[in-house]
Amino acid sequence: MKKLNTSPISGMQELTPARQAIFNQIKNQIAEVYRLHGFQNIETPTIDRAEILLAKAGGDTEKQIYKVVKTAETADDADQALRFDHTVPLARYVVEHENDLSFPFKVSQIGRNFRGERAQKGRFREFYQLDVDVVGRGQLPIAYDAEVIATAYAALKTFVKPQMKLRISNRKILTGLLDELGLSDKSEQIFGIIDHADKWSISQTEQALHELGISEAQYGRICTFMSIKGSRQEAIQNLQDMAVKDTTFQEGVAELEQVLKLLELQGLEDAIIADMLIVRGLDYYTGTVVETFLPEYKEIGSICSGGRYDNLAGHYTEQQLPGVGLSIGLTRLFYVLNEHNLLDTATAAPIDIAIVPISEQEYQFCFNLAKDLRTHGKITDVILTDKKLGDKLSYVAKIAKNVIVIGENEVTSSNLTVKNLETGELQGLDEYLVTPTL
Amino acid sequence: MKKLNTSPISGMQELTPARQAIFNQIKNQIAEVYRLHGFQNIETPTIDRAEILLAKAGGDTEKQIYKVVKTAETADDADQALRFDHTVPLARYVVEHENDLSFPFKVSQIGRNFRGERAQKGRFREFYQLDVDVVGRGQLPIAYDAEVIATAYAALKTFVKPQMKLRISNRKILTGLLDELGLSDKSEQIFGIIDHADKWSISQTEQALHELGISEAQYGRICTFMSIKGSRQEAIQNLQDMAVKDTTFQEGVAELEQVLKLLELQGLEDAIIADMLIVRGLDYYTGTVVETFLPEYKEIGSICSGGRYDNLAGHYTEQQLPGVGLSIGLTRLFYVLNEHNLLDTATAAPIDIAIVPISEQEYQFCFNLAKDLRTHGKITDVILTDKKLGDKLSYVAKIAKNVIVIGENEVTSSNLTVKNLETGELQGLDEYLVTPTL
Repeated sequence: MKKLNTSPISGMQELTPARQAIFNQIKNQIAEVYRLHGFQNIETPTIDRAEILLAKAGGDTEKQIYKVVKTAETADDADQALRFDHTVPLARYVVEHENDLSFPFKVSQIGRNFRGERAQKGRFREFYQLDVDVVGRGQLPIAYDAEVIATAYAALKTFVKPQMKLRISNRKILTGLLDELGLSDKSEQIFGIIDHADKWSISQTEQALHELGISEAQYGRICTFMSIKGSRQEAIQNLQDMAVKDTTFQEGVAELEQVLKLLELQGLEDAIIADMLIVRGLDYYTGTVVETFLPEYKEIGSICSGGRYDNLAGHYTEQQLPGVGLSIGLTRLFYVLNEHNLLDTATAAPIDIAIVPISEQEYQFCFNLAKDLRTHGKITDVILTDKKLGDKLSYVAKIAKNVIVIGENEVTSSNLTVKNLETGELQGLDEYLVTPTL
Repeated sequence: MKKLNTSPISGMQELTPARQAIFNQIKNQIAEVYRLHGFQNIETPTIDRAEILLAKAGGDTEKQIYKVVKTAETADDADQALRFDHTVPLARYVVEHENDLSFPFKVSQIGRNFRGERAQKGRFREFYQLDVDVVGRGQLPIAYDAEVIATAYAALKTFVKPQMKLRISNRKILTGLLDELGLSDKSEQIFGIIDHADKWSISQTEQALHELGISEAQYGRICTFMSIKGSRQEAIQNLQDMAVKDTTFQEGVAELEQVLKLLELQGLEDAIIADMLIVRGLDYYTGTVVETFLPEYKEIGSICSGGRYDNLAGHYTEQQLPGVGLSIGLTRLFYVLNEHNLLDTATAAPIDIAIVPISEQEYQFCFNLAKDLRTHGKITDVILTDKKLGDKLSYVAKIAKNVIVIGENEVTSSNLTVKNLETGELQGLDEYLVTPTL
């Protein structure tokens, strides 16, 4: 019989149990930070209506959406696809469950999303995103923009060891500037060019802007804008020096200043920088935008991004539901941190203590002992293979930190000795039980 | 503008934040029992090769598999579909990662699976399954059959309050009987009829068996078999009284006896029953089969099922990789427990303590206080809305258990009072911090 290919489909991350344990630990740490900051967890279905997902995707994303074929028994359903992010389903969720929510609604989402993009090293087609969002009804104070940024940063801090920089801007600033320059009709292209400026050479960016047919004066103003980067004081001063009168511009500058100030109040002064090159590709963002970089590892790109979206639910309701959110793309982040040896991969054996019965006569004693050890929070495995003791012990050496062998003597005397498999040290069971699990 | 329908697709479970919190708690409790029993967690991709998934689906399942449409950028990929259970991808995983695993490999999987079946109340097309499996290389002692059953039962015990009964059999028994009766060629149909016997009337079952054209003598023997149910001693005695000489039959009886004995040794005597009506529909099972019922709520059906599969990896490798596993279908179980008022739904407010600043002057003090409270494990929310104090407090009353209001006085005196929003009780911050969180 021809044997089938067992490798996962290209673009899928599949981890060994040891790596999965590290991944899960990181995921749980992020979830715990989100929880302690008061974000309530929700889950939306993986499969959603295609019209919902396509309504707000736009650009490349639309081409990358996986559609799902209805089965014979689901033929009456609406057209379906796999969600490509958490933000679009969240907008649908908030409208659908509005009466069950309190606003501002602080919400976290942890799950897998899907984008069928070109296969590329370090890019994944199925990937975990861990999002925090705050959604308001009618309005949402700008202070929540700082709140989601500070929360995501605290979550990243639990496992990202190199220095991180939050590069922050506000899309209203560029929108207002283009308005004043009479370039609103070219705004989509200009946002796109600035979004790529980091990856392009200066001459590439210059050429792309000139190809839009803008004047030298307009070009000069955009260059001045693009060069603004630095601390709150510097950046705000430089923006004001541009002397743009457009009210959207002024609003953006004021919001940016407020967000930066609030982050300073939370002790993030050294982690933040205002940077006008940050504009974000997705067109649902309307105000604050943020990306997170590791200055020592620029090639990694942004590890956590997001921003303010004021009209995401516009397709479903007349109600204004402004929101702001950040997302940690953990599958890719886990991959790149590992590639750069930035993961703490010193994995201990998964089992705290293995109980090895000499024969089946000791099974009942071992089962009771295991129950007791688990009550003490120890990960306990009773070895049930019918092999020789030596084979059992070499299996145990691969999976466990400690071992306890149970024979006739142990059952009758209840005198139990735990052996540490790393150090060879012996200790009594009672002594072991009060030793904290590493 | 026409507004889009915001309800989830039919057959999808989407919970409010309060219900999601209960669901997550149950999911975490199950995961913790699996972990303490020494099962290592893994995850396989949601999307897998269609040929892998279809190779072992069979029957109704095959018609219910969701296929995925490749995007322009993934056109070169193999045909793809969404996994319909954890067992088939596990077989692929074990072959793919064999060199990174220790056998017996004790593994848990927690995630969403997909079946596009006819819409029906209480049936879901996207659903959580929480599986425990043990996979051996070459052989796997029958003691592990009891191990997965005991583990799943311990997990269910953490949140299922009514009495549970594990109905256990072994497919070798019926296989051997049909062999001896010369009915091996009708074995698939007879397994199917017995699988439905619980839901059918006696005359329906009788008619279905007779329609296969079996003799009265054969019918009589099958009836005797089907009626065997009870404690280990009773069931094994009754099976031996059938005086079937077929070795597969004898092997099945011996295995069943051993599994029941091992479960008794683990204190499950009152929870188990041997029952020949349990045969399981999926044809990859080859030995032990088990289903779990709530005797007081028969209409709920099995809440946790599984069994032994000796040849699941046969499509991928010459290596024999026998396994045994059980699966808790949590999405449906959560739904039916809720329908029968069997869920502990007394949800507390999600936030332990809300900090309400009187004005923006107090923000920095509040951020520092929140940081400190989170270090103490308290779910803490700083209220950042720019509303009147009364409006802030009525929002807080909906989401938090305790509140602390911070004005100018509090900042200067650092004399902080926590108000319990349920009892109205006041206490000092230090006192609150040593109160355990409910």
